[in-house]
Amino acid sequence: MTEQSFAGLPATSIRDLKEHDGQRVLVQGWLYNMRSKGKLHFLMVRDGTGIVQAVMFKGNVDEAVFEQAKGLTQESSIRVLGTVKLDERAPGGVELGVDEMHIVHQAGEYPISPKEHGAHFLLERRHLWLRSKKQSAIMRIRDEAIRAIRDFFHERGFFCVDSPMFTPAACEGTTTLFELDYFDEQKAYLTQSGQLYGEASAMALGKIYVFGPTFRAEKSKTRRHLTEFWMVEPEAAYYDLDDVMTLAEDFVSHIVRRVLENRRAELDDLERDVSKLEPAANAPFPRITYDEAVKLLHENGHEDFPYGEDFGAPHETAIGAAYDRPVMVHRWPADIKAFYMKRDPENDKLALGVDMIASEGYGEIIGGAQREDDLEALETRIAEHELPAESFEWFTDLRRYGSVPHGGFGLGLERTLAWICGVEHLRECIPFPRMLHRIYP
Amino acid sequence: MTEQSFAGLPATSIRDLKEHDGQRVLVQGWLYNMRSKGKLHFLMVRDGTGIVQAVMFKGNVDEAVFEQAKGLTQESSIRVLGTVKLDERAPGGVELGVDEMHIVHQAGEYPISPKEHGAHFLLERRHLWLRSKKQSAIMRIRDEAIRAIRDFFHERGFFCVDSPMFTPAACEGTTTLFELDYFDEQKAYLTQSGQLYGEASAMALGKIYVFGPTFRAEKSKTRRHLTEFWMVEPEAAYYDLDDVMTLAEDFVSHIVRRVLENRRAELDDLERDVSKLEPAANAPFPRITYDEAVKLLHENGHEDFPYGEDFGAPHETAIGAAYDRPVMVHRWPADIKAFYMKRDPENDKLALGVDMIASEGYGEIIGGAQREDDLEALETRIAEHELPAESFEWFTDLRRYGSVPHGGFGLGLERTLAWICGVEHLRECIPFPRMLHRIYP
Repeated sequence: MTEQSFAGLPATSIRDLKEHDGQRVLVQGWLYNMRSKGKLHFLMVRDGTGIVQAVMFKGNVDEAVFEQAKGLTQESSIRVLGTVKLDERAPGGVELGVDEMHIVHQAGEYPISPKEHGAHFLLERRHLWLRSKKQSAIMRIRDEAIRAIRDFFHERGFFCVDSPMFTPAACEGTTTLFELDYFDEQKAYLTQSGQLYGEASAMALGKIYVFGPTFRAEKSKTRRHLTEFWMVEPEAAYYDLDDVMTLAEDFVSHIVRRVLENRRAELDDLERDVSKLEPAANAPFPRITYDEAVKLLHENGHEDFPYGEDFGAPHETAIGAAYDRPVMVHRWPADIKAFYMKRDPENDKLALGVDMIASEGYGEIIGGAQREDDLEALETRIAEHELPAESFEWFTDLRRYGSVPHGGFGLGLERTLAWICGVEHLRECIPFPRMLHRIYP
Repeated sequence: MTEQSFAGLPATSIRDLKEHDGQRVLVQGWLYNMRSKGKLHFLMVRDGTGIVQAVMFKGNVDEAVFEQAKGLTQESSIRVLGTVKLDERAPGGVELGVDEMHIVHQAGEYPISPKEHGAHFLLERRHLWLRSKKQSAIMRIRDEAIRAIRDFFHERGFFCVDSPMFTPAACEGTTTLFELDYFDEQKAYLTQSGQLYGEASAMALGKIYVFGPTFRAEKSKTRRHLTEFWMVEPEAAYYDLDDVMTLAEDFVSHIVRRVLENRRAELDDLERDVSKLEPAANAPFPRITYDEAVKLLHENGHEDFPYGEDFGAPHETAIGAAYDRPVMVHRWPADIKAFYMKRDPENDKLALGVDMIASEGYGEIIGGAQREDDLEALETRIAEHELPAESFEWFTDLRRYGSVPHGGFGLGLERTLAWICGVEHLRECIPFPRMLHRIYP
C-alpha cells in the first residue's frame, strides 16, 4: 500500500507542476479557497509546497463530483486529478484542468477566515494559522535560511557541534535564567548561549558551529522577545576580530542571497520589498568603530547619547538607517561588554567585540568578538564580574592547555528572519512561539 | 589583520594537505604527540580536521627552534611551516618536512595522557577529552550524520520545522518529564518529542521534519541513557505505514552510506569493523510483524517470552542478530503502544506502529507509526489513556479540519551514532553528555 499515489498516479507537488505541462497529475492537499461561476468551480488547492488553481468545468467531471465540490468547506482535504496547463496569468504560473476529485475529509467550519483576527486569537490557533499563505511562506523561508546556514559552514570546513541545553551556570548574567530541579536537589539552568562550549569544541575541532535553541527568562512583552529562540554560533581557532567580521559579512550575505534565489515566490507572498534586501546579498558590509557610531548618532538626531553606553532600539535604527545594508560596529567600551572578550591591544578600555545591525530598523542580528586567550587576564575578568570561578574552571582550562587566538559570533535566527521576511513580530518567525504568557499550543 | 595566515602563507587544513604535494604550507594546530631520535623530531600535529606527522630535521631549522621543540608539551599550540610530501606509509598518507615552527602557547602539564583513565575522570574533563583522536572522530562522524539527515529530507521535499522545547503537557507518559516554573505560577515541561507539533506542521507544509534536543528525566544509569539527546522526527501527510517504513529504510541506509563514503578515516580511528556496517548501506531492510518477531524469539533461546509484551534489550539483540542489517518490526499489540497510533483495519488489536532494530545488539533506533486520523477514534484513545483532553484540544483539531492519512517516525541520533561508530556508550556520541549525575562541564 501507499498513500503517495491514487488511481494509478503518483502524487505531484504543486511546486513541481510546471515541469508537467500537458500531463495528467494527482495533487493531494487541502482546499484553501473556492469561488464558483456557472458551470465552473475555481478551487485554490494547497499542499504545503504552494497553491494552485484547479479549474473544474461541469462538463469534464461526473455530475456528482461537481455537486460535491459545491459543498466543500475551507481546509477540506482533497485529491484532485487533472491536466497541467502553463498559464502566466495564473498564480504560480500554472493551472490544473480537473477531471476527477475525491474528498478525503470534509472539514468542520474553519475558525480562521480571510477576515482580520486578533493576535491572541491566531496564537491560540497557531497549529492552524501555520496553514495560511503568509505563515507557511515564512516557514519555508526559515527552512531555506537554516539550510543556507548549515551549507555555509560546511563549505568552509566548520563542524556542527551541539552544545548542551542543561548547564551548571550562567554564561552572561543570571537574572534571565530558567532554573529547574535536576536530580537529587541539584539545580540546572537552561542554556543562554552555546559559546563557551563552542570555544572548547573549537580547540578540539578547529572550526565549529553550534546551532540550537537558547532560552531567556525575560519578562518583556515586546515584539522583539521570545523566551525560546534559535541561535547559530560559529567559533574558530586562529581567528581574530577581523576574521570574525569577514566571516560574519560573508555569512549574512550568503543567507540573504540564498533566500532571494530560492524563495522569491514566498517573499512575494509576504509582499516584501526585495529591493531593500538586495544590497545585503553582497559583502563586504560597512565597518565602523563604536566611537564612529556615537559620532554618527550625535550628528543624526541623538545629540544627547552618552558615550560609553549601549545602544537602544532607536539608536540601532538610526545607525542602520545610515546604510543600505547591515553595518558592523566594532571596538566597544569594555565595561558594557561580556567578560570573555579580548581587550584591544591598542586601547585597554576597548573590547574587541562586534555587533551587526540590520538595515530598515530591525536592530542587532549578530554579536561577536575575539575572545580573551590569556589565562591571567581572563581570571581577572571573571573575578571583576564576580562570577563563580569554580563554574568556569573548565572554561579557563582552554587557556591552560594550548591557548590560541580565537573568536566567533552568535546570530539570532528569528531576528534575522524577521528582517529578511519584513515582518514586525518575532513570534511569526518560529513555528510555535514561546513568550511571557504563551506556551500553548 | 588575520590569524588565518602567517609569514605570508595562508593556513592549510591537515585534511587538505594531500592536494598540496611538494608545496610549502602553514599548519596551525596543537601538538598531539612527539618522539625524537637524534637529529629528528617527529611531531604529531592535530588541527581538528586530522593529524599529520611533521618531521623536523635539525639541519633544516634554526638551532633555537630545534631546541625549543625538545621542550614542547602535549597540547601546546604551534604554527608549523614546511613542505608536503605524499607518503603512503605515513598516517593520513602525507608527511610534512618542517623548516619553521612558532610556539603560540606552551601548554601546562596536560591531564589526559595516553594511559587509561576512568570514565568519571574523562567526563569531568570532557572539554579536553574531545581533543583525543577517538572522541574527535566521533564528533566528525556526528557532523556528517547530521548533514546526511538534513540532505536526505531536503532532497525529498521535507521542510525543517523546529518544535518547541517548552510544552504545556506530556506527549507520552508523565513520569519522565522535566518540569520547570515558567512565569506567574505556571508550569512548563521540556519536550520529550516534537511529534505532535510535527503532525500539525505536516498539515500546513505537507512533509516536514523536526530535529532538535529532547529530554527524559529517567533515573537510569545505563550506557543507553542520556537525559538530553537529539531526535529527528519526519512527519508526512498522505503517508501510510508502508510509506513510513520505506522512508525509514531509505533514510537509515542513506546515513550509513554517507558516513562510509566520507568518514572512512574516522571509522578506522575507531577501529570499527565496517564489514558489519556495510549491509546497512543498502535498502530495503527486512520487515517482520510483531507476531513473526515473537516466533523468532521463541525459536532462538527466548521460549518464555510472553506474547503481547514489549521487547527488552536481550530480545532486541536476539531479533537484530537474525539479520545482517537493521530489521523493522511492525503491527504491534495496541495495548503497549502510544495512544496516537492508528489501529490495523484488519485487526483492531494491532497498532500500525513500527520499530527499527539495529544490528549487532545496538537495539531500537527508530519508532514510528501511521497516526490515528479519525477524530472519534482519537478522542476515545485519549480518554482510555486518561490524558487531559483540554491539553490535546489543538491536536485533535488536526482531525477536525481536513484530516488526512499521515505518519512518521523518530530516530535517536546518539543511539544511531553509537551503532555506526561501534561504541558502547551513548555518552561518547554527544559533545557534552547530560546524565543522572552529570551536568558539568
